[in-house]
Amino acid sequence: MMPIPRIDEQRLWASLMEMARIGATAAGGCRRLALSDEDRAARDLYIAWCRSAGLTIRIDRIGNIFARREGRNPSLAPVGSGSHLDTQPHGGRFDGVYGVLAALEAVRTLNAHSIETEAPLEIAVWTNEEGARFAPAMLGSGVHTGAHDLDFALTRRDRHGVTVGAALERIDYAGPEPCAGHTYRAFFEAHIEQGPILEREGLTIGVVTGVQGLDWYDLRIGGEDAHAGSTPMAVRRDALTGAARMIIAIQDIARDKAPHGVATVGEIHASPGSRNTIAGAVELTLDMRHPDARMLSDMGSDMRSECAAIARRNGLELTVESVEHAAPVAFAPACVASVRNAAEALGYPLREMLSGAGHDACHLAEVVPTGMIFVPCAGGLSHNEAESATPADLAAGCNVLLHALLDYAASAP
Amino acid sequence: MMPIPRIDEQRLWASLMEMARIGATAAGGCRRLALSDEDRAARDLYIAWCRSAGLTIRIDRIGNIFARREGRNPSLAPVGSGSHLDTQPHGGRFDGVYGVLAALEAVRTLNAHSIETEAPLEIAVWTNEEGARFAPAMLGSGVHTGAHDLDFALTRRDRHGVTVGAALERIDYAGPEPCAGHTYRAFFEAHIEQGPILEREGLTIGVVTGVQGLDWYDLRIGGEDAHAGSTPMAVRRDALTGAARMIIAIQDIARDKAPHGVATVGEIHASPGSRNTIAGAVELTLDMRHPDARMLSDMGSDMRSECAAIARRNGLELTVESVEHAAPVAFAPACVASVRNAAEALGYPLREMLSGAGHDACHLAEVVPTGMIFVPCAGGLSHNEAESATPADLAAGCNVLLHALLDYAASAP
Repeated sequence: MMPIPRIDEQRLWASLMEMARIGATAAGGCRRLALSDEDRAARDLYIAWCRSAGLTIRIDRIGNIFARREGRNPSLAPVGSGSHLDTQPHGGRFDGVYGVLAALEAVRTLNAHSIETEAPLEIAVWTNEEGARFAPAMLGSGVHTGAHDLDFALTRRDRHGVTVGAALERIDYAGPEPCAGHTYRAFFEAHIEQGPILEREGLTIGVVTGVQGLDWYDLRIGGEDAHAGSTPMAVRRDALTGAARMIIAIQDIARDKAPHGVATVGEIHASPGSRNTIAGAVELTLDMRHPDARMLSDMGSDMRSECAAIARRNGLELTVESVEHAAPVAFAPACVASVRNAAEALGYPLREMLSGAGHDACHLAEVVPTGMIFVPCAGGLSHNEAESATPADLAAGCNVLLHALLDYAASAP
Repeated sequence: MMPIPRIDEQRLWASLMEMARIGATAAGGCRRLALSDEDRAARDLYIAWCRSAGLTIRIDRIGNIFARREGRNPSLAPVGSGSHLDTQPHGGRFDGVYGVLAALEAVRTLNAHSIETEAPLEIAVWTNEEGARFAPAMLGSGVHTGAHDLDFALTRRDRHGVTVGAALERIDYAGPEPCAGHTYRAFFEAHIEQGPILEREGLTIGVVTGVQGLDWYDLRIGGEDAHAGSTPMAVRRDALTGAARMIIAIQDIARDKAPHGVATVGEIHASPGSRNTIAGAVELTLDMRHPDARMLSDMGSDMRSECAAIARRNGLELTVESVEHAAPVAFAPACVASVRNAAEALGYPLREMLSGAGHDACHLAEVVPTGMIFVPCAGGLSHNEAESATPADLAAGCNVLLHALLDYAASAP
């Protein structure tokens, strides 16, 4: 076959910047919560671009968007790629959207060079990857692979009580297609690293071998509302002070499992929330991750026992609810090798690494051979409006993606 | 003069229970935020009762309500009493309202026995004592005594941006009377203790000699939003973990000043508030109190230096804003003696004590001789829907109030 062309760095960058205008924040980031008006506008723009590139669009009942470039042999399973268009509340311009637009840029490059593939190519946009509006995260890809029932997914609610199903109807993205019934020959997701390792080591490509396991918990701490002035310190049952001690204990548990263990309390709500009343109730969210399943389980056990001890010592009640568990993921060796070979062939400095974050690729890996490609992001920042990556690094990751896709799609299996 | 009659315990209790229906919560408390529809309903009911008791009503521009029972000598300064009708978001049935309805019950008792006084009596209902909707607390009494300018008070905003002035207009309690121009011969406020001391010591009456000083601060902690999975613990700038360390340090500072020092973080807001994003910003409210001005000042200095050190060690930014300061108050010895003499004459077990909470009486004490009467509350609980007091204790406090009022009003000065 002919030499593989390079993707168009400027075209990729221009598409990323145009998409970043949708939900743009004053601080230079994006706010496109899943199934919001901004998410709808991003989906509409993306579909218009896909149609210009000659792709056919299908939308399934959970709102996943599939854009297909036909192969010489339409009966072959497609080679898939993609990610998500939704963002965190204070999200950046690259998390997710890069994986979608890198796949589109790969297709545009093939079009520009009139390169046909034996197998079809398909770009997927997965619904509600972030989990910021609806829990759990990675919802659309989870329904696609059978990890979640469709009915379960459609009945998840945001904090205002709106269901996923109602939100999909509202933005007109409750599609007609069933949520399974097709599979991929292989699936690749390109993504910014969302951590500092590539940048610190001066590398361009992360060959992702697997993903950390994850546990999400909700903690509810019960004390007693009381007057801030007339209740002596010794008799208080202050839920917020108890919560503070738990947050510190949780930090220490993660640090004991350095360098891979991480734990984050990202949300806290104190009730009644009055400056001269001792808080009688506090709710916390907790995110714990480790690449080793046993270590992750130990972190959860340590958290439960230490927080229970803190509650007991301070006269507080505590409930700990497990709301999400994702086992550590190991990607398919053949896909990992394909990414590594592509990066080496292109001459990009690389390393193998684990992903600290969950991705739609984790669900895909349960059912089809899957790989991921990381590129550096400035300061390792993500889930932050200042999230940043260079056009050259983004182009490098896109070239690796194009190579890996052709590795699987160019010829019959 | 004739012997002083006893107040009607059942009538007082019935009025308290009827008022408690306004804004009643499922858990048995009250929610009557200042200048809300519930506050209006409570004011309307109270004024109807006052008119039935033959009192004349005046309302000033900050919404304070004055109900006057004429004396034989209308030119004498009235003897005042009263408190507030607004509550905390999860408030109880007695905080504030007891002081208002005890004064009304004293007047009803004088009416029932056709007892005239030389000086007029006046019951005051002060606007926005709690500070739960509008900061600062004790706003109406503060305007009355000149501690706050009227314009300042009218332009305070709740968290939805509604001003005190607009809220007063909305409920039709922006009265025509100027906010000063009259003064009291003496002022007495009856109140539940809001602490555990009387109940624990088996006493009925607290003779309040003064009130703790108070400082309110807002703390803003700045870190960096980052991904919860891919950001190693060692490189995080987690504002919520920093906030947790500050909350613990603040507890220790108050405990160092035991038994009188208290410190409370009642409100906390973490941003962006997503379970898989490290919090880049946290806001806290802090309430510190001590009866000794020097000790209170030391607590604030210690808080500033320790929180700054925590911020420095954790790579965080910190701003500390002082939003309210109330110096410790000592009540007029003559008023304290009047309360003590009344309780002794009535045979109630008593002790002298400090108030841990601020009260409208603190502002009154700046301009007129002032005293306070405490009665026990169950478990010392207040600012809590479970706030409770016995009809007998409430009647005892009301009898002491009636004695103290007559001590000042019965004869010419």
